[in-house]
Amino acid sequence: MLRRLKLILEYDGTAYHGWQVQPGLDTIQGRLEAALSRLAGSPVQVMGAGRTDAGVHALGQVASCSIDVRLEDRVVQRALNANLPADIVVRDVTWVPAEFDARRSARAKTYRYTLLRRAERSALEGRYSLHVPYAVDVEAMAEAAQCLVGTHDFSAFRAGTCAAATPVRTVSRAVWRTEGDLCRFEIVGNAFLQHMVRIIVGTLLDVGRGRRRPGDVVEILASRERRRAGKTAPPHGLCLVRVEY
Amino acid sequence: MLRRLKLILEYDGTAYHGWQVQPGLDTIQGRLEAALSRLAGSPVQVMGAGRTDAGVHALGQVASCSIDVRLEDRVVQRALNANLPADIVVRDVTWVPAEFDARRSARAKTYRYTLLRRAERSALEGRYSLHVPYAVDVEAMAEAAQCLVGTHDFSAFRAGTCAAATPVRTVSRAVWRTEGDLCRFEIVGNAFLQHMVRIIVGTLLDVGRGRRRPGDVVEILASRERRRAGKTAPPHGLCLVRVEY
Repeated sequence: MLRRLKLILEYDGTAYHGWQVQPGLDTIQGRLEAALSRLAGSPVQVMGAGRTDAGVHALGQVASCSIDVRLEDRVVQRALNANLPADIVVRDVTWVPAEFDARRSARAKTYRYTLLRRAERSALEGRYSLHVPYAVDVEAMAEAAQCLVGTHDFSAFRAGTCAAATPVRTVSRAVWRTEGDLCRFEIVGNAFLQHMVRIIVGTLLDVGRGRRRPGDVVEILASRERRRAGKTAPPHGLCLVRVEY
Repeated sequence: MLRRLKLILEYDGTAYHGWQVQPGLDTIQGRLEAALSRLAGSPVQVMGAGRTDAGVHALGQVASCSIDVRLEDRVVQRALNANLPADIVVRDVTWVPAEFDARRSARAKTYRYTLLRRAERSALEGRYSLHVPYAVDVEAMAEAAQCLVGTHDFSAFRAGTCAAATPVRTVSRAVWRTEGDLCRFEIVGNAFLQHMVRIIVGTLLDVGRGRRRPGDVVEILASRERRRAGKTAPPHGLCLVRVEY
């Protein structure tokens, strides 16, 4: 009998070609499906809440699947972790009602982007932060970020390859926090377009460097033109922190 | 003309066979000497403040060398970082008096050992912390650590292969600090014997698990017998934080 499973995952995306299964490539979803299939003795497919890009990390990615397994949640978790590499961990496992879908049931997602502000690169923080050896005005970036809060057409902050049906998304929070030489951007939204957080960060960095004013973000948003926004920030500074249901 | 150089290094020790040069093995010292030799156009040998074991990390290792280079310190730093892999970084470079020796001139070193206290392992913290899925009494470990402060014969906390002339060392600080599910042990001493910090942590973990009482550390110290102390804790939780001169 198939039962519905909800999994919370932490992973270091450095070694993977992103979340989504792609033929011949090593992906997080592929590794998770392999571990689940081994446990079930038959092929299992999962749905992830967010399709994180190659190199993006997660503290709280959520996945769901239907699986014919009659074990307690703790036992399933232990069995999966025994079959997953060191850079992927199942943090929690729960049996849920059949209608639960990690992607469609999600109400909000939190992403975090980390900058390392110092002259030289870091050997220990380098995997999880973007090295920013130039001066950035964090207050200006914070002011610009506030312009993104609300329900908007985010076409300007969307990859050309994005397949979403509508570009309208609601951002409920977008703040910067400084901790020593680390500077973290936290953004909460109901959902995100492809590359949306990374394009937002790239644009805010332009503001931080004084190449744009904080208010420019309002115009970029209104233009709905991708070319008006900044570069897509590199993936390794990004982390999917939490998904709420 | 040879000038004396002081370097401060940060590194992720995961991929290396420790600090010290060993024939045919990839070491931090070996990588640093290769970068320095390339800059000087002739072989350069360095002396490190601490011979960190394979897998041990550093935020502030210090090295010194004599080198025939007529460049400004910032230029030397940039040239070295361009020739070092991503997991080794020169954080600072200074020209110093000829008598400076990274090892012999050191007055104090700070090491940090990090525990991750939670049921499941971590994909993101796993490289830099020891996973402790069992309950530990941090107050008991803190009490036991206090017994180590002072000038003592640390023979009980010394590897069998340790080549130091005397086992007497002075520990000026030994504290535990909790930050969420991370728990950090910070120890400051004038110098450390081989594996000393890792054997201390292994012994304190026995106290934390209730297998020994905090006061047992006094007896272990007095015994001067390695077999009385706990296991050598794994290297990847350890980091050389700072060297003072």
